[in-house]
Amino acid sequence: MNKKYWSARIRDCEPYVPGEQPKDRKYVKLNTNENPYPPSEAVLAAARQAANDALRLYPDPVCGDLRLALADRAGLKLEQVFVGNGSDEVLAFCFAAFTDEKTPAVFPDVTYSFYPVYAEFFGAPTRVPPLNDDFTMPLEELKKNDGCIFLTNPNAPTGIALELDVIEDVLRANPDQVVVVDEAYVDFGAESAVCLVDRYENLLVVQTMSKSRSLAGQRVGFAYGCENLISALTAVKDSFNSYTLDRVAQAAGLASVLDEETFREHCSKVVATRERTVRALENLGLQVLPSKANFVFARHEKAAQLFAGLKERGVLVRYFAKPRIDTFLRISIGTDEEMDILLRELESLLQEIGAK
Amino acid sequence: MNKKYWSARIRDCEPYVPGEQPKDRKYVKLNTNENPYPPSEAVLAAARQAANDALRLYPDPVCGDLRLALADRAGLKLEQVFVGNGSDEVLAFCFAAFTDEKTPAVFPDVTYSFYPVYAEFFGAPTRVPPLNDDFTMPLEELKKNDGCIFLTNPNAPTGIALELDVIEDVLRANPDQVVVVDEAYVDFGAESAVCLVDRYENLLVVQTMSKSRSLAGQRVGFAYGCENLISALTAVKDSFNSYTLDRVAQAAGLASVLDEETFREHCSKVVATRERTVRALENLGLQVLPSKANFVFARHEKAAQLFAGLKERGVLVRYFAKPRIDTFLRISIGTDEEMDILLRELESLLQEIGAK
Repeated sequence: MNKKYWSARIRDCEPYVPGEQPKDRKYVKLNTNENPYPPSEAVLAAARQAANDALRLYPDPVCGDLRLALADRAGLKLEQVFVGNGSDEVLAFCFAAFTDEKTPAVFPDVTYSFYPVYAEFFGAPTRVPPLNDDFTMPLEELKKNDGCIFLTNPNAPTGIALELDVIEDVLRANPDQVVVVDEAYVDFGAESAVCLVDRYENLLVVQTMSKSRSLAGQRVGFAYGCENLISALTAVKDSFNSYTLDRVAQAAGLASVLDEETFREHCSKVVATRERTVRALENLGLQVLPSKANFVFARHEKAAQLFAGLKERGVLVRYFAKPRIDTFLRISIGTDEEMDILLRELESLLQEIGAK
Repeated sequence: MNKKYWSARIRDCEPYVPGEQPKDRKYVKLNTNENPYPPSEAVLAAARQAANDALRLYPDPVCGDLRLALADRAGLKLEQVFVGNGSDEVLAFCFAAFTDEKTPAVFPDVTYSFYPVYAEFFGAPTRVPPLNDDFTMPLEELKKNDGCIFLTNPNAPTGIALELDVIEDVLRANPDQVVVVDEAYVDFGAESAVCLVDRYENLLVVQTMSKSRSLAGQRVGFAYGCENLISALTAVKDSFNSYTLDRVAQAAGLASVLDEETFREHCSKVVATRERTVRALENLGLQVLPSKANFVFARHEKAAQLFAGLKERGVLVRYFAKPRIDTFLRISIGTDEEMDILLRELESLLQEIGAK
């Protein structure tokens, strides 16, 4: 690749690398934080029903029905809801809408690894304070009112959650800046900041249907905020792509919002399996950070070797060869059966390499 | 809206405005160039089949099967094909990949009205030479090797197409610049430049499934170019959103590529209806530009009044209140029955306002 013709924006970029979606063999796939339970029959039926002759027509560009359902569920107004092509697109739009040359993006060193990529793509400077030694948020560093804050709650890949009153402190300390609370994993036991939207004009809450709603394959993300912030995201969307959510995705998303029961049931099952898995991992000698997400971040000196060994044995987890976290494995919570396989293979592997 | 918190990028932006998708009443909808014929049963079945338990999993981030089918059909390699969330997203990525502060975007004054919006969003200067008086391309102005060329072929909203040898002249005249040929409407009678991809390293051909493949509701766009240019688009995508095409869209798109027969049949029908419509509009006294697209651009002194009158009568066409084209109506080609209604209402309206 000679990169002739490439713009200055991308010539030296380091794109985000998503977790593997391997096709070579069937894995116990615990590497991309997908939900182990399928969407409900109601959601699948809505998607199938939307696959009709009307696909010849453009989708609703403002996604009215879906946004209204999300607004209703949150006790907010239509104008306080934005939807996009997965929360990744919504987050990209946040960088475009709320950062610029003079408005840095502020996020900790260990968090969602797409943030620095977005910042570089949209030309925003960054301030990246390190997490505390125990991997908790460096809160004083997030109260400097000097840039748009990106706060993943629970944080990824640590799984550690913040209390709502702490988030309120951050909101109050940054009156001139937007605080984006990225709640991709909030439904597995953390507290959502959505109840604060009416009180803080600088709060934007981003969520996704990819994890707790089992719709990673359908790409639906959304955001709650005051009308002013939502209008900013809409201005970005309409400068980029008028129709980001197709007809089937809008229909499936809507059906999911209306199916509260399946949502709650699947979240509860994941949480129960997580708690059981944490205890088992600790029994195997791993140190596990306190997780409120659908994954756990587990420490072992030989993490890199464990990652490779598990993959050979057909269990895929995620390993980040990065400073501070290169002795950790991020393990998504699957079904109880899948976690049993993980634990069995891990135990055997630890014995094999003499680490247990 | 006080626009507090809005980035410099969007504070003064003028977003693109898509054609109306009205819900208030049932219109004969000839305003957004959708295909009047539905996707084939094979395509709908593929979409429905993809709405299964696997929606809990992320889609293939590289869209391998769909890109391979597109590559095969065009006689190219996988690495020469890119896919995105509608050609609007692919075009946005082109502005990000091939323009920057020092590399302007070059396009004529009358063309796809999203181009200036993209340019402003991505901070690219523009050079905008006017179309010739007869609305043909100002070719000498597009041979200055001074910026990334965006060439809509057939052009929108005029419908006028360029010959391939003219496009080759533009490619040869711009050796240091990418020439993006936007072929959203090419399948209705113009010549595609895809056969030139192996010969010109600066050629990128962008197409969409929204028009000729009746999949506007599913959001699938794609591009052909040399591996270097496709890699640039991939770098943009992976700096923005890893998974832009959901599982159902990938499946429907793949089925459409494999269904050559329906594709050809629907294109032929649209072309036949267009030719009949052009003659009828001319008989009503309108001047119609020579169209190779699935719409016609028809001139009448009272275009604004005709647009409003047709809407009242339940026929939606598109009117642009812009310099040079404010005496034109852009009329999408529907079924023969829909065009009969348009022509009947137009004739009656012309009599009513004393313009015939």
